[in-house]
Amino acid sequence: MMRNILVLGAGKSTSYLLDYFLEKTTVENLHITIGDINPDAIPGKIKNHASCTVRQLDIFKDVERKKAIAASDIVVSMLPARFHIKVAEDCIASKKHLVTASYVSDEIKALDNAAKENGLVFMNEIGLDPGIDHMSAMQIIDQIRDEGGKMLLFESFTGGLVAPESDTNLWNYKFTWNPRNVVVAGQGGTAKFLQEGTYKYIPYHKLFRRTEFFDIEGYGRFEGYANRDSLNYREAYGLQNVLTLYRGTMRRVGFSKAWNMFVQLGMTDDSYTIENSKGMSYREFVNLFLPYSPTDSVELKLRHYLKIDQDDIMWEKLLELNIFDAHKTIALQNATPAQILQAILEDSWTLREDDKDMIVMYHKFGYELKGKKVQIDANMVVLGENRTHTAMAKTVGLPVAIAALMILNKKITTPGVQIPITKEVYVPILKELKNYGITFKEYEVPYLGYNPDSVAS
Amino acid sequence: MMRNILVLGAGKSTSYLLDYFLEKTTVENLHITIGDINPDAIPGKIKNHASCTVRQLDIFKDVERKKAIAASDIVVSMLPARFHIKVAEDCIASKKHLVTASYVSDEIKALDNAAKENGLVFMNEIGLDPGIDHMSAMQIIDQIRDEGGKMLLFESFTGGLVAPESDTNLWNYKFTWNPRNVVVAGQGGTAKFLQEGTYKYIPYHKLFRRTEFFDIEGYGRFEGYANRDSLNYREAYGLQNVLTLYRGTMRRVGFSKAWNMFVQLGMTDDSYTIENSKGMSYREFVNLFLPYSPTDSVELKLRHYLKIDQDDIMWEKLLELNIFDAHKTIALQNATPAQILQAILEDSWTLREDDKDMIVMYHKFGYELKGKKVQIDANMVVLGENRTHTAMAKTVGLPVAIAALMILNKKITTPGVQIPITKEVYVPILKELKNYGITFKEYEVPYLGYNPDSVAS
Repeated sequence: MMRNILVLGAGKSTSYLLDYFLEKTTVENLHITIGDINPDAIPGKIKNHASCTVRQLDIFKDVERKKAIAASDIVVSMLPARFHIKVAEDCIASKKHLVTASYVSDEIKALDNAAKENGLVFMNEIGLDPGIDHMSAMQIIDQIRDEGGKMLLFESFTGGLVAPESDTNLWNYKFTWNPRNVVVAGQGGTAKFLQEGTYKYIPYHKLFRRTEFFDIEGYGRFEGYANRDSLNYREAYGLQNVLTLYRGTMRRVGFSKAWNMFVQLGMTDDSYTIENSKGMSYREFVNLFLPYSPTDSVELKLRHYLKIDQDDIMWEKLLELNIFDAHKTIALQNATPAQILQAILEDSWTLREDDKDMIVMYHKFGYELKGKKVQIDANMVVLGENRTHTAMAKTVGLPVAIAALMILNKKITTPGVQIPITKEVYVPILKELKNYGITFKEYEVPYLGYNPDSVAS
Repeated sequence: MMRNILVLGAGKSTSYLLDYFLEKTTVENLHITIGDINPDAIPGKIKNHASCTVRQLDIFKDVERKKAIAASDIVVSMLPARFHIKVAEDCIASKKHLVTASYVSDEIKALDNAAKENGLVFMNEIGLDPGIDHMSAMQIIDQIRDEGGKMLLFESFTGGLVAPESDTNLWNYKFTWNPRNVVVAGQGGTAKFLQEGTYKYIPYHKLFRRTEFFDIEGYGRFEGYANRDSLNYREAYGLQNVLTLYRGTMRRVGFSKAWNMFVQLGMTDDSYTIENSKGMSYREFVNLFLPYSPTDSVELKLRHYLKIDQDDIMWEKLLELNIFDAHKTIALQNATPAQILQAILEDSWTLREDDKDMIVMYHKFGYELKGKKVQIDANMVVLGENRTHTAMAKTVGLPVAIAALMILNKKITTPGVQIPITKEVYVPILKELKNYGITFKEYEVPYLGYNPDSVAS
């Protein structure tokens, strides 16, 4: 019997997801329906597939949406997170399973009882981060517990970066995902985490100066800065009694120190608009954040303000972005500093045709077993193939696709609104991900606890 | 005929205000009614005055409030700003004039037509800042314009400080007003101003490092940091075409650089609460904002983090506040960093019985007259008498009282919701303030424009 999978939204994260489904249509007896607001953008290879129907679908048109959901056996929503709730409500009404890669909102959480009563699996946070981070961490945490170990420490960092071969600028960075999220990263609240039993708080303007280092075999050194709330999954992971709980974002070493220049200047602010931004030169934009001088150059004022020595590589990083250019102008009217900075960075940091991206994930587990302290480091590196088949699309899309098929095949059956932290979910999915080269290396290392020598500040 | 003045709220800013009214009761034929939520706190000298009635009044009890307002000839509201609107609506209904020292809210502004239709003067922002700043600035700006001058530059700074004889700590600062406003000063948005025709923006974490210096004859040197929006009164003052418009807050030199340590640490944040704040030692509080170390002291970590040299006076300023004390504990539960910092500072910065405060205001006017550029500097210094008769109470309360009496005596008659920027208002009020020693010194100095050499950063 043919099973119908409805995929809502076919944006850039869905290349691997759709490939996975389409290569299994015959074996698994699947028909894929893709509903998208702009179906013209979907590649011909997909549109012309015999077991695939592509249709224009406006998620705000209730009748169309409900009809499409009612005709499916399972729904995969790759829409922006704020649109999931309408889909989820329809899934309850039509008794369909639902899979998303997004954080569980309060609205979605409220559907937990209804999902359970109808025997429906509402799987969320099953992309990369959140997603693979949950599964890979819980697999090791559960192993430690099964052996009788007691968790003391958990750290986890993820980064979306460029592959070494495409790493061609001084920032060792290009936009491989939503640039806006990169520009406003860390805003919206003080970072909070636990270090050796003490709560720690880092304000935004210090966030990029409190990094940690990580070495990954074959890939060299990386740095990480803290996420807003490292304690978010303390209960979900059962880590109420750990001494150290620290989650964050990875970059190549030196990125954060350089990024901090923009933070210090105030260029990442997204809370107000600049007067007369349209037509302003990059140089004038920089000068908005510097004291007035009738004689000194914008360059000298910035060097002085940020205390950049004459031979500091920070300076070359700024020059590389042309931020002192008096002829390049801003096209945005009434723009915030963050929007303008994003536009300036896109000049330099957009992936080229032949650029490849790279996903890096790093976990550190500290625990006590039979009176002995043990540490496990685990890491995953995934490289992209090209600009559409990115490592990001692979690591976000494949877990979603795998989960959807396993729910359809009743390998995952526990109903309710959930995230992938149970063995029923993560064991088969991690196993299937291995077949696609998504795999972790594990190292048992001497227990260091929270090692202050790896703190950069 | 006896005239009734209703004063709502008799808090610490009202000592001079009430004295002014009470000393004029006979000559001016006044009766003063004071309505306060807690009348026990009002001094006997006032309560027992023959022409004064003190009554318990809860501003949220509509019947009582309306009755008290209806029985008056003019209402002076010294309540917190958010309570004015109920009073103002009753004043419209009962056709009474209203005087407040608060900023004009949108709600109050919306009553402008109703006030005009009823011939009522609703005078606001007639304290110190806002108040004396408006009047003293507009007097000089109008003089310049009357002579045919064209305004090029306006800067204005005000500070509530301690008198030189009470200036006994390393910060040259004590709380002479609401401590909370001092701790959260500068928060809630990027500072914005105009320097020589260019917009300038300073993010909060740089605000206290972008100060200017001012010298005031007989009182030495002060510094100023920018207010949130220096352009607020651009239209009201008729300064649409000036090149420089800069308003701010004054402190003694060195305060801002030291205060910036708290900003950098994140201790002034009022947006989240600290876990387990009650009973935490001052030392533990400081450590929340520093990286973990199994060996280094809180002192060394802080020195390193903020780059404080061994012989830097910044360090002595911190020690003076006992912030490294492991025995002094925080009494507040679920407190924000800002609330905890305030409590720590109150230990050291509360005015003593015999301490006196000081108000300093500084204006700089630049203009062109007959092809020549001219600059006028003006300043006002007011010293407090004691802890109740403070310079703050004098400079906030006297303009309010004077305005109320002048409205009652029909010397100020133009109706509507207004601030004191017209000659009808500021000329007689500034003249009367002189009789109480509130006066400006003016100096004609060489025109410097915006002088970058006076910028500290």
